[in-house]
Amino acid sequence: MSRPHALVIGGTHGSGRALVQLLSCQGDKVSVVGRTAPPDKDLALEGVTFYQGDVCDNSRIVEIVDQAAAAGPLTKLAFFQRFRGTGDDWENEIAVTLTATRNIIDLVVPHMPDEGDKSIVTVSSIATRFIASEQPVSYHLGKAGMDQIMRYYAVVLGPRGIRVNSVCPSTMIKEESREFYAGNKPLTDLYERITPLGRVGTAEDCGNVVEFLLSSKAGFVTGQQIMLDGGISLQWPEGLCREIAGLNVQVTRKTDNEK
Amino acid sequence: MSRPHALVIGGTHGSGRALVQLLSCQGDKVSVVGRTAPPDKDLALEGVTFYQGDVCDNSRIVEIVDQAAAAGPLTKLAFFQRFRGTGDDWENEIAVTLTATRNIIDLVVPHMPDEGDKSIVTVSSIATRFIASEQPVSYHLGKAGMDQIMRYYAVVLGPRGIRVNSVCPSTMIKEESREFYAGNKPLTDLYERITPLGRVGTAEDCGNVVEFLLSSKAGFVTGQQIMLDGGISLQWPEGLCREIAGLNVQVTRKTDNEK
Amino acid sequence: MSRPHALVIGGTHGSGRALVQLLSCQGDKVSVVGRTAPPDKDLALEGVTFYQGDVCDNSRIVEIVDQAAAAGPLTKLAFFQRFRGTGDDWENEIAVTLTATRNIIDLVVPHMPDEGDKSIVTVSSIATRFIASEQPVSYHLGKAGMDQIMRYYAVVLGPRGIRVNSVCPSTMIKEESREFYAGNKPLTDLYERITPLGRVGTAEDCGNVVEFLLSSKAGFVTGQQIMLDGGISLQWPEGLCREIAGLNVQVTRKTDNEK
Amino acid sequence: MSRPHALVIGGTHGSGRALVQLLSCQGDKVSVVGRTAPPDKDLALEGVTFYQGDVCDNSRIVEIVDQAAAAGPLTKLAFFQRFRGTGDDWENEIAVTLTATRNIIDLVVPHMPDEGDKSIVTVSSIATRFIASEQPVSYHLGKAGMDQIMRYYAVVLGPRGIRVNSVCPSTMIKEESREFYAGNKPLTDLYERITPLGRVGTAEDCGNVVEFLLSSKAGFVTGQQIMLDGGISLQWPEGLCREIAGLNVQVTRKTDNEK
Repeated sequence: MSRPHALVIGGTHGSGRALVQLLSCQGDKVSVVGRTAPPDKDLALEGVTFYQGDVCDNSRIVEIVDQAAAAGPLTKLAFFQRFRGTGDDWENEIAVTLTATRNIIDLVVPHMPDEGDKSIVTVSSIATRFIASEQPVSYHLGKAGMDQIMRYYAVVLGPRGIRVNSVCPSTMIKEESREFYAGNKPLTDLYERITPLGRVGTAEDCGNVVEFLLSSKAGFVTGQQIMLDGGISLQWPEGLCREIAGLNVQVTRKTDNEK
Repeated sequence: MSRPHALVIGGTHGSGRALVQLLSCQGDKVSVVGRTAPPDKDLALEGVTFYQGDVCDNSRIVEIVDQAAAAGPLTKLAFFQRFRGTGDDWENEIAVTLTATRNIIDLVVPHMPDEGDKSIVTVSSIATRFIASEQPVSYHLGKAGMDQIMRYYAVVLGPRGIRVNSVCPSTMIKEESREFYAGNKPLTDLYERITPLGRVGTAEDCGNVVEFLLSSKAGFVTGQQIMLDGGISLQWPEGLCREIAGLNVQVTRKTDNEK
Repeated sequence: MSRPHALVIGGTHGSGRALVQLLSCQGDKVSVVGRTAPPDKDLALEGVTFYQGDVCDNSRIVEIVDQAAAAGPLTKLAFFQRFRGTGDDWENEIAVTLTATRNIIDLVVPHMPDEGDKSIVTVSSIATRFIASEQPVSYHLGKAGMDQIMRYYAVVLGPRGIRVNSVCPSTMIKEESREFYAGNKPLTDLYERITPLGRVGTAEDCGNVVEFLLSSKAGFVTGQQIMLDGGISLQWPEGLCREIAGLNVQVTRKTDNEK
Repeated sequence: MSRPHALVIGGTHGSGRALVQLLSCQGDKVSVVGRTAPPDKDLALEGVTFYQGDVCDNSRIVEIVDQAAAAGPLTKLAFFQRFRGTGDDWENEIAVTLTATRNIIDLVVPHMPDEGDKSIVTVSSIATRFIASEQPVSYHLGKAGMDQIMRYYAVVLGPRGIRVNSVCPSTMIKEESREFYAGNKPLTDLYERITPLGRVGTAEDCGNVVEFLLSSKAGFVTGQQIMLDGGISLQWPEGLCREIAGLNVQVTRKTDNEK
């Protein structure tokens, strides 16, 4: 079997970058698309080629996909791009998160080989299911929409041997945000406290799960959404908030026979 | 069409009692099973017959179902019974919540008429999906198990025209607990604050949803689980807990580019 | 309490029209928006005013909302509009299903009274969760996106006493499609066979569920998605397809110990 | 870091056995519990110790856990045991699937080290969410109950660094059932046809996913349920069954404007 070749959209920082490092380490060929140039030290990564381009610039993307595919058939595709503007910028969120994902899948699929396991992973957010009300409606639309696009392609591309899955992370600490969280102890303490696993996730945690889904070890997994949140979403908010508020009332089944 | 006849298990207090009052008001015949006698004032309810019995006492339940059915074919069945012991009383939780529900469905179904809409509703809890860690594992097993029993019967009894659905309430204020919440303002304030609708639910809220699912207006709804929580479960806990903890950090997409 | 006033988007045919008839019958004031004129006989409906307009024509929608609100504060809002073009018309599906829904919610909310229960219902489809592969990716994006928009507003508008829910119907027979299904017996037979309740749903079934969610009887229900499918989605496809294919192999736990 | 040590319940055949082989190959120490003796060739597996015992025989299980733990602290625990009786054997399904799982978790946890990643995986079935109507209600209760037990422990054991997840497989071909499927071409063809990935899963597919969840690569994944079904559950049954029934009616948005 030939060496796997991954195309990573948004792989120049954060979790996408962690994935690129991981894939490079294990000997995959990696083509990376980023809106900005990669950090200098990434340029030394074995087997990695960087392409600068905006996911909304369709002719540039066509060019990149063609060049990447010329270096060998693509077997893995991962999406980490994010709209980074502010406010409820409806049109741009749709363009970056939804239209670009669909366009790139449609462009890359013909460059995937007929034989062997192929895999696509979209990285969305807990906002596919939950509401983070400090984020605008467009953000939630983008994440939930991307997840249903993922399921659609899982069904439609399955017969070609292409699997499609998603990872939905909670807040992850990355190289770019490490300092912010380190300097904000009350916030970090709170996040640790509300996470059953007692810590905040990292870009590496995210990279590892994406790497698994991209690998043939996940060969029968398709259309799945993995929440990556250390257990935060499992907890019923009444008890959690009672604890944060310091209201450790004794709620037994006898006094509180309603639940 | 003849007058509907509902059998309400656990209808002598709380939300079950609210349903009994509602059904009586709208002219249904109602047969109520309770482990204890009903409040005196309920004895005056029009069209309601009370049967005292423990849901785990199978021969008593057989007797009650026979007597109730003798008064007219049963068209509606609702489950509100709860295990009220303390601790992780595994065997009894299974007996009261799971075995009794299955037994009673199996006993009642033959007494349902062939024609017309028939409906069963189980009332479980948010613990079918979420973890309320002050409750033991057996409680969670009971609720989640009851919900899958509901779905099983929805498929299997559908061809007989019997629909089966569930309602999963958060904390509800009932006549029995009104005083507790009224006297515990910090707790009530907290619950109001974490509920998007800004109030705690009531036994009447629950009765109304069960009544709808029991009615022919829900004639194509089956196998559904309705969370009755004022929106609590929609919220991503990070933001919610930041607010409760008074950590109103500005989390923009720029500084927090991980979510 | 004053008479409820509902704004129904897409209320001139199908399930939206069924809702309009229902609301009119129970005495609500109803303002209806349709791209085409209503059927003549609907013009006689008590308390109903029709406005012709395209949901994507924002200035016309502003005009309609203003006129409707002038006739009395709006307390109910329901969305039935659908993009009816062919193929994978990405831009138009987004405009009709997503952008219009957001815009209209933002326009209507300021016209809702401060006091009392207010409710919004979006009608999407089973394609919010499942993949109907004869429909394009844009269709699935529209439906899943609309459902997350619904949850977003449930959280954000909850404090104003506005509830937001969705109904996700499977195929529904409506006045407009009755003949098609009546003339296509093999298809109708198949649909009846794969539906636990043994029949195809109707526009009235859908109208009834929307009506309940719009009413104060659902006063603590928000952010919920009700699948309206007669139980179709509950069934595991292996057994269902074995039956359709006539492969009634005896699959016991002993021979098939994998499931 | 010391060598990982896994306890595999039900590891003498099927997917559990595939996991044991995988863990042995990668150098883990493995303790296996089976009701029957393992196949002869498994006795040669490197680092694997077999214990014969019934999961419902609590004193035998206590003995096994003590012996296994004496060979080194347990860091991984996986559940593959199944009730293999026939009919709706309610009591035994509960004992084997639910009570045994809870008991063994409670017994093993104290033998897990304080430091480092620890992981528990339960293998249930698609019947945690869907209804396979050829299986009895007890089977569905067992699977759904086990999944909620999994979530409960994910929350409660998280602070001890123990993750808990589940895998929900569809039909998987194993060494024991390979002949059955090979000799039943119509059934195998049907299953391949209704699976987007075009093949039936295998014990190895299941072993691989469990292995990932047990590994520290999944270090921030907890309380998750991964459906392992090749995409079967994503598909809306109407279209799927139309295809199986050979009813390739043209269902466009124009003629079928209901969905």
